[in-house]
Amino acid sequence: MNRIVVKFGGTSVMDAERITRAAGIVAELKRGQTELVVVVSAMGHTTDELINLAQKVQTKPNDRELDLLLSTGEQAAAALLTMALESRGIKARSFTGAGAGILTGSTFGNARIESVQTEVLELCLQDNVVPVVAGFQGISTDGEITTLGRGGSDTTAIAVAAALHAERCDIYTDVDGIYTADPRIATNAFKLETLSYNEMLEMAKYGAQVLNARAVEIARDKSVSVRVRSTFEPSNEGTLIGRPPSKFTDFTGIGVDTDTAFVRVSLNPPRSDAKSYMRVFRRDRSHRKNKLVSLLSSAHINFEVGCTFNIVAHELDLCIEKNELEKSIEVLRQNLRTGEELFVDMGLARVSIISQEMSSTCEIDAVSSLSKNNLPIKLLVRTAKRLSFFVPATRKTEAVNLLHKKLERVRLSA
Amino acid sequence: MNRIVVKFGGTSVMDAERITRAAGIVAELKRGQTELVVVVSAMGHTTDELINLAQKVQTKPNDRELDLLLSTGEQAAAALLTMALESRGIKARSFTGAGAGILTGSTFGNARIESVQTEVLELCLQDNVVPVVAGFQGISTDGEITTLGRGGSDTTAIAVAAALHAERCDIYTDVDGIYTADPRIATNAFKLETLSYNEMLEMAKYGAQVLNARAVEIARDKSVSVRVRSTFEPSNEGTLIGRPPSKFTDFTGIGVDTDTAFVRVSLNPPRSDAKSYMRVFRRDRSHRKNKLVSLLSSAHINFEVGCTFNIVAHELDLCIEKNELEKSIEVLRQNLRTGEELFVDMGLARVSIISQEMSSTCEIDAVSSLSKNNLPIKLLVRTAKRLSFFVPATRKTEAVNLLHKKLERVRLSA
Repeated sequence: MNRIVVKFGGTSVMDAERITRAAGIVAELKRGQTELVVVVSAMGHTTDELINLAQKVQTKPNDRELDLLLSTGEQAAAALLTMALESRGIKARSFTGAGAGILTGSTFGNARIESVQTEVLELCLQDNVVPVVAGFQGISTDGEITTLGRGGSDTTAIAVAAALHAERCDIYTDVDGIYTADPRIATNAFKLETLSYNEMLEMAKYGAQVLNARAVEIARDKSVSVRVRSTFEPSNEGTLIGRPPSKFTDFTGIGVDTDTAFVRVSLNPPRSDAKSYMRVFRRDRSHRKNKLVSLLSSAHINFEVGCTFNIVAHELDLCIEKNELEKSIEVLRQNLRTGEELFVDMGLARVSIISQEMSSTCEIDAVSSLSKNNLPIKLLVRTAKRLSFFVPATRKTEAVNLLHKKLERVRLSA
Repeated sequence: MNRIVVKFGGTSVMDAERITRAAGIVAELKRGQTELVVVVSAMGHTTDELINLAQKVQTKPNDRELDLLLSTGEQAAAALLTMALESRGIKARSFTGAGAGILTGSTFGNARIESVQTEVLELCLQDNVVPVVAGFQGISTDGEITTLGRGGSDTTAIAVAAALHAERCDIYTDVDGIYTADPRIATNAFKLETLSYNEMLEMAKYGAQVLNARAVEIARDKSVSVRVRSTFEPSNEGTLIGRPPSKFTDFTGIGVDTDTAFVRVSLNPPRSDAKSYMRVFRRDRSHRKNKLVSLLSSAHINFEVGCTFNIVAHELDLCIEKNELEKSIEVLRQNLRTGEELFVDMGLARVSIISQEMSSTCEIDAVSSLSKNNLPIKLLVRTAKRLSFFVPATRKTEAVNLLHKKLERVRLSA
């Protein structure tokens, strides 16, 4: 018998009407003699509302208590969706993460799933009962309720699919698949039928918020096929993740985010005798950059270094997540030498071009098309599958559309 | 060291501001070197809102799922109150009912507490940590989350107080104690300083909604002193339950409710020879009444029989809870003989006079003062500690005030 894990996101269970609709989708799938396990997010904006409430009570809410608080959101949604299924005559049973056997590490607020004990879920399937699992949560070995961090319900769904050896994991959301770029931004964006895990991973990390990156890693590592599809158009097959596109293409899509800031450290030459000035300065400059980068690493800060790192430049350019900016600035300030300067720009958008394999043609095409239109680029990060750079946030739409028009033909002709 | 269990009701934790206020009360008590355990209800009207939501999804929500849904309300409140305590520098830790060791039977929606495993709570107290327990819920021996029914958080608090051998259980609510009658109805109502368990039990069952009757039974059976007091006037000592008033009085208070309906079965004589008519009819009538009463009992319906049961009357008068009315009518209808008639009145209020020991003087005083004012009485139930009867719901305020004025001197002069 087919076995599918189905996950509904917050917008798909936002109110009673939508919960009933989601139950309808499950009923339709069930008709096909499929064994189904459902994973559900909290209703609509519940999680954000609970966080706001917590912050009114405690400026920086206690992590353990916050997890106990937030986990109620998914628990409630699971119970309600189960009622909606029962109401349609489908035998169903809701479970908290703990009840469903989701065992995690003990880092509150960002726990990793360590294993899924499938006994309870298998028993349900044997009895033709649809288990409805509260996503985003689990229980640590010391019996504490934990949550998995943002997008954690995707992780739950894919981990459950892997543990149950499900044929597929369907992620039902409010869009009908993964697009080459956010269609609200890029007028030419089109839906991708298939994507490899690694392409999806880059897309998830650098812009596409539809699917959580950690969830994609688990899917890749456990070879779980994932389909991203719309609750509002259940007949639309969405995007299948796992299979690379039939033909090789060097354009997957474009991501854009405003969650990162541009940080520049301007280095000045140390005192030195004039004679060996250039040589010493260069060596020292490279040494300084290494030093500052390793200081940030030691402080467990997530950052990327621009390509000014390797070339002979007087600056160290960094891309740092805004929520780690304060900490990063502190680390850097404490270690600045006289004459060195720190410059931070929060008003930028990071644009990322994702590719199965980034070619130099692609990079040249991208940079030249932006230059032609007088769009200033700051920092450039180049990896095997991605090219990222900052543009002014006010011009991000323009940048994404220019790049999409320049690069789309590669995929369209494939 | 003193050990006190403190319970906050829904109105005491209705929003962030009130949660902070409740934390302030705990902080004040903690200053007195007291070991504290906190039990908390769901915020404001959360439970009702969740029930409404459930009913939108499933006409008659599944009991198991409803418990999983409702239990989130107290869990969230416990986490938030814990954060508010931590924010004041008080070490605290929240627990679900299951986490706190509240073991229950397996009747979803109305589970009884079977035992409280105190290990976790004792460990907290040893470490000077205030445990904050989600009220109204527990876990059954088969590992299912259960709820205790309306007012269940009172039950949790008192059961925890009993298990921990606490000196007292303080029930913080939105009124400053137990009154002789609802002060919103009876203008002369006054606060009772002390009440015996049995008086409180009758008051709780027949009108005073401040404290749950089952909780009072546990308090009585385990000899837990209970203080009902106001979150908004924490210096007010409220009402102490457990100690009978210093002098014997035959007036405790007056309760009123509109949760019950008056049901009358009019009995007609069966065919019989004219000669022995009266004797046969009387015997048969008494037999019929017994028969109908036992049918209702077998159907597990909660009802009371009016004093027409024992006297020579052609009617069987019953007082039946409105939420069991449909079922009761079905049972009675199916068993009516030709000529017998069923009469139901939903528009009545039940007024109950509670006394340490009901005297015939009290009954005469009550009935005559209502008659003098042309207030019609229907049905009369008389027990050792209570006299209940129906008056038209539209005249309940008048009835309660008349009775209060007539009877209050007994307690006031004591």
